[in-house]
Amino acid sequence: MLFLAHMQVNIPDTVPTERADRLKADEKALAQELQKSGKWRHLWRVAGQYANYSVFDVESNDELHSLLMSLPLYPFMKIEITALAQHPSAIAKN
Amino acid sequence: MLFLAHMQVNIPDTVPTERADRLKADEKALAQELQKSGKWRHLWRVAGQYANYSVFDVESNDELHSLLMSLPLYPFMKIEITALAQHPSAIAKN
Amino acid sequence: MLFLAHMQVNIPDTVPTERADRLKADEKALAQELQKSGKWRHLWRVAGQYANYSVFDVESNDELHSLLMSLPLYPFMKIEITALAQHPSAIAKN
Amino acid sequence: MLFLAHMQVNIPDTVPTERADRLKADEKALAQELQKSGKWRHLWRVAGQYANYSVFDVESNDELHSLLMSLPLYPFMKIEITALAQHPSAIAKN
Amino acid sequence: MLFLAHMQVNIPDTVPTERADRLKADEKALAQELQKSGKWRHLWRVAGQYANYSVFDVESNDELHSLLMSLPLYPFMKIEITALAQHPSAIAKN
Amino acid sequence: MLFLAHMQVNIPDTVPTERADRLKADEKALAQELQKSGKWRHLWRVAGQYANYSVFDVESNDELHSLLMSLPLYPFMKIEITALAQHPSAIAKN
Amino acid sequence: MLFLAHMQVNIPDTVPTERADRLKADEKALAQELQKSGKWRHLWRVAGQYANYSVFDVESNDELHSLLMSLPLYPFMKIEITALAQHPSAIAKN
Amino acid sequence: MLFLAHMQVNIPDTVPTERADRLKADEKALAQELQKSGKWRHLWRVAGQYANYSVFDVESNDELHSLLMSLPLYPFMKIEITALAQHPSAIAKN
Amino acid sequence: MLFLAHMQVNIPDTVPTERADRLKADEKALAQELQKSGKWRHLWRVAGQYANYSVFDVESNDELHSLLMSLPLYPFMKIEITALAQHPSAIAKN
Amino acid sequence: MLFLAHMQVNIPDTVPTERADRLKADEKALAQELQKSGKWRHLWRVAGQYANYSVFDVESNDELHSLLMSLPLYPFMKIEITALAQHPSAIAKN
Repeated sequence: MLFLAHMQVNIPDTVPTERADRLKADEKALAQELQKSGKWRHLWRVAGQYANYSVFDVESNDELHSLLMSLPLYPFMKIEITALAQHPSAIAKN
Repeated sequence: MLFLAHMQVNIPDTVPTERADRLKADEKALAQELQKSGKWRHLWRVAGQYANYSVFDVESNDELHSLLMSLPLYPFMKIEITALAQHPSAIAKN
Repeated sequence: MLFLAHMQVNIPDTVPTERADRLKADEKALAQELQKSGKWRHLWRVAGQYANYSVFDVESNDELHSLLMSLPLYPFMKIEITALAQHPSAIAKN
Repeated sequence: MLFLAHMQVNIPDTVPTERADRLKADEKALAQELQKSGKWRHLWRVAGQYANYSVFDVESNDELHSLLMSLPLYPFMKIEITALAQHPSAIAKN
Repeated sequence: MLFLAHMQVNIPDTVPTERADRLKADEKALAQELQKSGKWRHLWRVAGQYANYSVFDVESNDELHSLLMSLPLYPFMKIEITALAQHPSAIAKN
Repeated sequence: MLFLAHMQVNIPDTVPTERADRLKADEKALAQELQKSGKWRHLWRVAGQYANYSVFDVESNDELHSLLMSLPLYPFMKIEITALAQHPSAIAKN
Repeated sequence: MLFLAHMQVNIPDTVPTERADRLKADEKALAQELQKSGKWRHLWRVAGQYANYSVFDVESNDELHSLLMSLPLYPFMKIEITALAQHPSAIAKN
Repeated sequence: MLFLAHMQVNIPDTVPTERADRLKADEKALAQELQKSGKWRHLWRVAGQYANYSVFDVESNDELHSLLMSLPLYPFMKIEITALAQHPSAIAKN
Repeated sequence: MLFLAHMQVNIPDTVPTERADRLKADEKALAQELQKSGKWRHLWRVAGQYANYSVFDVESNDELHSLLMSLPLYPFMKIEITALAQHPSAIAKN
Repeated sequence: MLFLAHMQVNIPDTVPTERADRLKADEKALAQELQKSGKWRHLWRVAGQYANYSVFDVESNDELHSLLMSLPLYPFMKIEITALAQHPSAIAKN
C-alpha cells in the first residue's frame, strides 16, 4: 500500500553542528536500509529546497507512522501524507 | 530528468457524457502508451479524489510541457509541477 | 485501518431536483448499509455546513477509494483524506 | 454533544527534556482517564505528524474549553474545534 | 451556549429576482422572530459585504444546525461556526 | 459604532512568569473597566484557544486603535478588525 | 474617519454588454460625484487588474456600508475594508 | 508614479529597548521628512495593528526600493508593494 | 523600469471556438510586436499550465496597465504584478 | 533549459554581523561569476523586499539544485522553482 510523503527538513541553529551531522549520517544509513527493504520505494529531492518527496510501501497506517517516527531527523521534519490508490490507467500494480 | 506532477481533473457538466467518455478513453490509451515508453514513469490515484500524482521522465521542460499538452484531458486539468533532483540518500539513480 | 474523511457536498443548480433527491436517497441507503457493515465507522454533520467528517475502517487505500467512488453523491463531493494511526495514549484499538 | 478537535503539539527546544517527559506522562494519564469517563470519546494519531484528531463528548462549550485547558500539554498545542451535529444518515446517535 | 457564525450570502444569477426577493423577505421575518425569541442574540452586517457576523444562543450543536438549516437563504450561505466559551475577564455571563 | 475584533494572544517563553502574571491581571482589570464603561461591549473566549472575539463600541477608528494599544497584553496580540454596520434585519440598533 | 477599500470587480458573461456599459457609466458618474463631495477621497487602479484601492472619508461604518451599497457595480464587487487610524508619524491629519 | 505599500513592523525581543526607541525616533524623523518632500504621500495606521498602509510617489521602482531600504526599521518590516495606475474614474491625477 | 507579470489565462466554455481562436491569433501578433519594440522583454510559458511569466520594460505604472489592457486576452487573464528593482549583485542594468 | 526562482533571504539575528557580511560578499562574487558564465541568466530585486526573482539556464534539475546549494546564503533562503518552457508567442528561444 503506497503513500506519498512530502517531507520538509528544518534543523534549527540551536542544534550543534556535530549532532546535526551525526543525525544526518544516521538518517542516510536508515533511509538506504529502508529503500533496500522495499519499504521506502522512492526518494527524490525537491530542487532548490531541503525537502523531499518520497513513496512508502507499507502494510498499514500504523507501520507508516512507526517508520517515519523512527527517522533520526523526524523531530525536525514537517510531513504531509497522501494516501495513494491504484490508478485505473496505470500499467503497473501499486 | 524527473518531474512530479499533481494533476487534478475537473470535467464540467457542459461537456456531453459521450464526449467525456471518449476523452477519458483516449486519455487512458495515451497514458498507457507513455508509460510503456518510459516517459510517464509513475501514475498514482489520490485516494478520494479525481486527481493523480505522476512522475515524468523527460529530456527538458519543453518536452514535459508538450507531453502534458498532448493529453486529451489537458484542458480540464489543473497541474502543478515540481522539479525533482537526485537525493543524496537515494540508492537509485533518478 | 482508519481514515478520517472531510466530505463537502455541492450539488449544482443544473442538477434537476428530482435527480438530486434520488441521489440523496440512494446515498443515505448506501451510507447506512456501509455503517452497518462496519466500513463507515462514524458519520457526523459539520454544524452549519453541507459537509461531514467521517471515519472509514478499510483494509487498504484501494478499498477506501473504491468505497468513496461508489457513493452516489461522489461526483459532487470534495474529499480530503487523513490517514489515522494508533495513538499511544488511546485506550481503544483503532 | 460532540466536537472534533484537531490538536497539533509543538514543544519548543527551550523546554528541558525532563520537564517535557513529565508533561507527556501527565498528559497520557489524564487523556486515558478522560477517555474512560467518556468525555474524550476518540483519540487518533495523524500519520506522520505530532498531531491528533479527537472527538469530545461534553455538555457545553465551557466544559470543552475547561477540559482542553486542563491538559498538561495545552500551552504547546494549536487546537481547532469543529462543532458536530447529528447526521441524518448516521445510524448511531451522537 | 453561544456560537459565533460568519455567514456569507451569494445568490446566483440563475435565481429569478422574484424568488430571491421572497426568500429575502422570509429570511428577514424568521431572523427577527429568532432574535425576539433570544436564539439569534446578535446580528451585524459586515461593512462592504453581503455577509454578517451573528451570535446564536442554543442548547446544543444540533439545535444550532437545525436553526441554520431552517433559514430560507441557507442554501446560498457559506457559514463558519466558532464555539464560544465564557471568558474569565467578561463581566457578563454568556 | 461597532467593531468585531479577533484577538489572539501569544506570550513568548522569554517573558518571565511573574511579569506575565502581572500583565494578565492588569489586562483583566482594564478589560472589566472598559466593559463597564460600555466601550468593550462583548468579550467571548474562543473554545480551545488563547483567543477571543470581542465587540467594541467606539466613536472612531482612532478611539478603537487607542483603546487596543492601551491593553497591557497588546504587544503580544495579533488583532484582526472587522467594521460592523447596522443589519437591516436586526431588531436592535448597533 | 478613513477606511481603505480593496475593490475587485467581476462582471459575469451573463450580463448583457449594454447593461454592463450602462452600469459602468453610472458607476463612473457616481464615483466622480462622491469624490467631489470628499466622501471618496482617493481612487487608484491596481496595475494589471480590474480592481482598485480606494480611501473613503465617512462619519461611521453605516455610512460606509450605505455608500458602497449605492454603487451600481456593487453586486459585482468583492470588497475588503481596513479601518485606518491616525499614524503618529503622519504630518497630515486623517 | 504611485505605489501602495502594506508595511508590517515586528521588532523582536532581542533588540534592546533603547535601540528600539532610537530606531523608532529616527524612523519618525525620516518619515516626516519624506512626507514633506512629497515622496511619502500618505501614511495611515492600520487600526489594531503595528502596521501601516502608505502611498509613495517616486520616479521608478529603484527609487522606491532605495527609499524603503533607507528606513531605520526596514530590517524589521514585511512590505508588500502594489503598483497603482491612474483610474479612469478618478478626478485627480495620480 | 521592469515588472514581472504572472499571467494566467482562462477562456471559458461560453466563448465560441472561432472567437477564441481569433483572440489568440491577435494576442500572438500583438505579443510579438511588443517584444520587438522592447516593451515586452521576456515571455516564458509555465510548464504544465496555460500561464506565463513575463517581464515588461515600461516608463510607468500607467504604461504597464495600458499595455496589459490592450491585450486581446486581457479579459480572460488573472495577472499579478511584481515591481522589480536593480539587484546590487546583477551584472546587467535593468 | 530555464527555471524561474523566487528567492527570499532571511538571515537570523543569531548570525554575527561579520559572518553575515562575509557570506553576502561571497554570495555576490559567486552570483556575478555565475551570471558571467550564463548559468544565472537574470537577477532582479523584488522592490521592498530582501528577495529576488532569478532565471537560471541549466542542463538539468540536478545542475539547478547543485548550483543553488553552492550559494553561500543558501541555508538562509526560501526558494520556489518554476519550470519554464518555450512560449509559442515568444520571439526569442529560451
